[in-house]
Formats: sequence, structure tokens, C-alpha cells
Amino acid sequence: MIRYEIRKGEERDIPALMTLIKELAEFERAPEQVCTDEKILLRDWKEHQSFDFLVAEINDRVVGISLYYPRYSTWNGRCYYLEDLYVQPDARGMGVGKALLLATVEEAKKAGAGRLDWQVLDWNEGAVRFYKSLGAHIEKEWWNCKLVIS
Amino acid sequence: MIRYEIRKGEERDIPALMTLIKELAEFERAPEQVCTDEKILLRDWKEHQSFDFLVAEINDRVVGISLYYPRYSTWNGRCYYLEDLYVQPDARGMGVGKALLLATVEEAKKAGAGRLDWQVLDWNEGAVRFYKSLGAHIEKEWWNCKLVIS
Repeated sequence: MIRYEIRKGEERDIPALMTLIKELAEFERAPEQVCTDEKILLRDWKEHQSFDFLVAEINDRVVGISLYYPRYSTWNGRCYYLEDLYVQPDARGMGVGKALLLATVEEAKKAGAGRLDWQVLDWNEGAVRFYKSLGAHIEKEWWNCKLVIS
Repeated sequence: MIRYEIRKGEERDIPALMTLIKELAEFERAPEQVCTDEKILLRDWKEHQSFDFLVAEINDRVVGISLYYPRYSTWNGRCYYLEDLYVQPDARGMGVGKALLLATVEEAKKAGAGRLDWQVLDWNEGAVRFYKSLGAHIEKEWWNCKLVIS
């Protein structure tokens, strides 16, 4: 049985974090939209504390990530937002994604959040099933608006 | 001509903020989902710095709000999220909503964010037109997932 470990991300994990962010963007059919790089990620994590992250490791290789930060709901108060959850194809099927998500829930609880939010692409049926199996409520009536300001 | 003023929210504005949050939830057909109260809002704003807010005032009455906080995009770096934008019905049609949104953009820019994100309900055609007129890009392929954790 292959063993994996979930732990908080560290500075040495930034290159792997960037690699997995890019792989996820490929899967989401938008690789050209990744405008960040390792330097930006490191600065935003270390200096600005814009996010935090967990890694899943197998034999010292990072095979999965969860990247999250606090958000706020005027209806429910303090929440956490899961920006990216990704497991590499060859590490799927052994519960790594679920373990990363549940570990993120624990981080959110520790920070006083009452809800964890994230998004899923409407065509990603496997992920939708997985999230529903964990008890997530899926809302289809909200559209995302984005305004580039710089 | 009626004059309005946009300014940063202060502690004395919390009761009006709560009132307008509830009015917006009524409009969004979900008034029963508002579980916060003035005490929670005040604590989360003042102690936890979970969000910041702007108010629009006419003759010392708060008629509109914008509530926002930093978020992070692994594709675009530091962003801001506009959680609530609301103008009371009798104060509409004179640019208060646009002024609140543009003032939020300025706050986001000052904080180093490169993008402002928010959401709109798919049936809110007036808002969709308004946001498009400001240059916002609207994405319809993402669904929201929420997991209650406390």
C-alpha cells in the first residue's frame, strides 16, 4: 500500500506548488491564464500572507496541493475559501484529494471559520460527485464577475 | 439634484450595514439565510479585520454599501472580492451603485490587487447589464460549492 503524508506547505514547496497550479490550469483548459510565477507565489505567501497551503507527499514527492485563505460571508460570518485542490493523475484513487480537503476543513475550523467554499467547473462530473459525497451543497445560480483593474 | 457621498465605513455604520445586508438578502430571495447580527459584524470587522466596507450617504442616511476583502488567485495573484454591493430602491438611478463599485476598485488598487471579483445571480438581468457596461467579464461555467463545518 502506498503511503502519503499531508502537511502544511513550506518555502521549499513553492516550486512544486507552482508546477501543480499549472497542471490544474491545464486540466481546467486555461493554461495560458496563469500569470503568476514562483517569485510572486513566494512573496504573496510569505510577505503578504495572502494564502496558505497544504501538500500531499509520497516518498518526498509533492503529488497534491490545497491552497486556501479566509473569506467573509455577510450571511454566515467567517469562512474559508479553497482556491485550488489538485492531485496528480498517478496519485489518484487512494484518497489523497479527500485527505487534502478534510485537512483544509481542519485548518478552517482552527481559524474560526464556519464554512468552506470553493468552485467546480460545470463539466467536471467526477469532482461534482466527489464533493456531493462529502456533503457539499452545490449552487448553480451564481455567475462570477471579474474586472481587471491594473 | 440630490448629492451623495461615498466614504469608508465606521463603527457607527454597523447598524445600517446590517440593515442593508438584510435588504439585499430579501432581494436575493434568501432572507432566512442571514445568520449574522450587528455584534458579529462589528467583531469580525474590528477584531478579525475579516472585511472592510464603504457607505453611500444622502443627508446623513446610509443608502448604499460595498463590503469587500482580499482574495487570492493562483492565476493572477492578489485580488479583491466584493461580497455585497447594494443601494436602496429610493436611491437608485443616480449613479450611487457605480460610484460604490468604482470606489471599491480604488481601495483594491491601493491594496495592490490586480482584479476585483464578485458574483451575480443569473436572473438579475439589470445587474448583469450594469456590470458588463463597466467592462466586467462574466463567467457562467463555475458552480459554487459550500460545506458547513461547524
